[in-house]
Amino acid sequence: MKKHDNGFIKKQNKKWVLDIVKSRRPISRAEIAKITDMSATSISRIVQDLENEGFLRETELLSGGVGRKANLLDIREDALYTIGVDLSEGMCRIGIMDFTDNVFYMEKVSMELAQAPEETLRFIAEAVNRTIREQDLKPDKIAGIGLGLPGIVNHSSGVVNHSVQLGWSEIHAAGILERLTGYPVIVDNDLKMLAKAEYRYGAAQYSKSSVLLGFGSGVGVAIIMNGEFYRGENNLAGEISHVTVDINGEQCKCGKIGCLGTIVTEKAMIRQAARFVPITSVHELIGHYNKQELWALNLLDRVAVYIAVTITNCLYLYNPEILVLSGPILEDYPEIRKLVEEKYKLTVSEPIPMQMAFKYAQLGDKAIVMGAALQAQDTLFNFDSL
Amino acid sequence: MKKHDNGFIKKQNKKWVLDIVKSRRPISRAEIAKITDMSATSISRIVQDLENEGFLRETELLSGGVGRKANLLDIREDALYTIGVDLSEGMCRIGIMDFTDNVFYMEKVSMELAQAPEETLRFIAEAVNRTIREQDLKPDKIAGIGLGLPGIVNHSSGVVNHSVQLGWSEIHAAGILERLTGYPVIVDNDLKMLAKAEYRYGAAQYSKSSVLLGFGSGVGVAIIMNGEFYRGENNLAGEISHVTVDINGEQCKCGKIGCLGTIVTEKAMIRQAARFVPITSVHELIGHYNKQELWALNLLDRVAVYIAVTITNCLYLYNPEILVLSGPILEDYPEIRKLVEEKYKLTVSEPIPMQMAFKYAQLGDKAIVMGAALQAQDTLFNFDSL
Repeated sequence: MKKHDNGFIKKQNKKWVLDIVKSRRPISRAEIAKITDMSATSISRIVQDLENEGFLRETELLSGGVGRKANLLDIREDALYTIGVDLSEGMCRIGIMDFTDNVFYMEKVSMELAQAPEETLRFIAEAVNRTIREQDLKPDKIAGIGLGLPGIVNHSSGVVNHSVQLGWSEIHAAGILERLTGYPVIVDNDLKMLAKAEYRYGAAQYSKSSVLLGFGSGVGVAIIMNGEFYRGENNLAGEISHVTVDINGEQCKCGKIGCLGTIVTEKAMIRQAARFVPITSVHELIGHYNKQELWALNLLDRVAVYIAVTITNCLYLYNPEILVLSGPILEDYPEIRKLVEEKYKLTVSEPIPMQMAFKYAQLGDKAIVMGAALQAQDTLFNFDSL
Repeated sequence: MKKHDNGFIKKQNKKWVLDIVKSRRPISRAEIAKITDMSATSISRIVQDLENEGFLRETELLSGGVGRKANLLDIREDALYTIGVDLSEGMCRIGIMDFTDNVFYMEKVSMELAQAPEETLRFIAEAVNRTIREQDLKPDKIAGIGLGLPGIVNHSSGVVNHSVQLGWSEIHAAGILERLTGYPVIVDNDLKMLAKAEYRYGAAQYSKSSVLLGFGSGVGVAIIMNGEFYRGENNLAGEISHVTVDINGEQCKCGKIGCLGTIVTEKAMIRQAARFVPITSVHELIGHYNKQELWALNLLDRVAVYIAVTITNCLYLYNPEILVLSGPILEDYPEIRKLVEEKYKLTVSEPIPMQMAFKYAQLGDKAIVMGAALQAQDTLFNFDSL
């Protein structure tokens, strides 16, 4: 609890009005007054401020419901831009988001594998600077950069503690990228960025609580409660990859036996398949599955059981309003989706209500870029910084 | 977000001062002013109100640190009482808590098994009414009753949805007990009540986030974040009993295969032991274990592995500041505790920091009564109700 002084309340109200316009645009002053229970005079004053500062603009006169005419308010898309970066093994996506949250530009670039972290960050910085130039954006209109990557990230210090996929350990990614670009940078786990995008514009839109499960190069969980990430004390909440699911199973690189990550990641599936056929991708595995080869049928049956069990266990443990499934293993292969849906029916029992099912992620390839840009906007933009 | 009017702020400040005195009693007006950053005049006025209403009293003049004398403030224990009830199979504990949160009276009564829910609630009501009479408490000083019991409880409607242990289904326990006693009643899951007590006065004292694991007649998790229960959307968060931990395991009553509840509850342990020796209690099982009988050694070894895995999985999934272990299986048997601690070492790996270990519950038999009374006080007491 803390005391609220006038300056604080004034800024809060301004932010509140801006958020209302963002989520319901275009909107009339009268509607804002109704939602906030503030006087018409207060709203007019706040709106005037926001217009002067370049955040809001008036739209054409439009018919507002039953024959009335109202001058509506909208967000100025050019008020502020944020850059979203989605970095993974050998690949990087860079996107630009305007102040209406529209990602109007995105490019995908391949990168050398196994280069030093500083090289990767330099490469990203150059691509970002080039993109900003090419898109003709004014540097003072750029709030900052959001970087999403696989691994354990300390979002408050900007340090990537550990990323198996990138081979990074204790890299101050935010600091380095800030130095190379001159813009403020936030870094976070890519699954959290994805969850953010799905929460704001996808499958979990403004849900009270959502849990996003990702199955791809790794397996992980991102949790959003009341609009905020639930991170746990050490930023480890949802590190489901090392949850023990089979005490008689395979040994994990971490030393333990039967971690979920030994079964349901792309690499784990390829490693299991390689006992039968020398394949290098899940895509090839699906080929063998579709030819009804017994080993492939059995392998995917087992993987589907563990994915289904993981879904149900997350429903019991977190009991979210919405559970979202994402990641290439599920998003790219209808065969696996179908199997998981069949197995899921075997894993649901009272007291989990049958209506508490899952949804698939909706934003596809641009989700992490979008979430990273949104997170940068939310974190880096405030009225003080202008 | 909502507008804060003067009446609201005034009441908030009063509650704030009362909470400060409760947690730091005895305390001087000057210290309260410092903590709240309110003026001495404001504090004096609020304190005067709280004294007039019977919540605070002045203590004797006491030396306050370096030679100064300050008139300290303390809580009046007789300001308000709440009743805590801990109901389980065939047994019920009833306690009375004063306004300093001291449970100054507690009794344990045996009850007939398998009687109708209404009979059980009538029995409780009579015991409560008798206790209030015998302790010579004024009915208008009683804020209400908190009832904790095993099962899935809708705390907001006061309905017990389902309790395997009690054999209850859709029982409006709060409504019935209110009618029989005349006092307001809140009902909640007993593990949540226990977690509340440990959060306020035990192993998880005022932690930012705590997860309490209970191993007894059932297995469950109660989660407290920022001082509030995390319940999930359907009050099911932490229903760990039906989390799948062994897809090749025993079939559970719920229909699924390998639920945690088929392995680590008292009944599950007794059922597994009964293949070897006709025992009826964990106590007997421990006897065979201490005689080094092979089946008992193996049985407890396996149970300990699953308890250890459950602890670690909860650390990964919730990443709480403090994890508390409770329940008779662990609290009553040092043999099992020792085994679990050994197995735990095998289940911890990076990135779980080794310092993120667990604690044992500290409040013993009275914990649920205490938590139920605390929860009743928090829920039912407010300045409007006086």
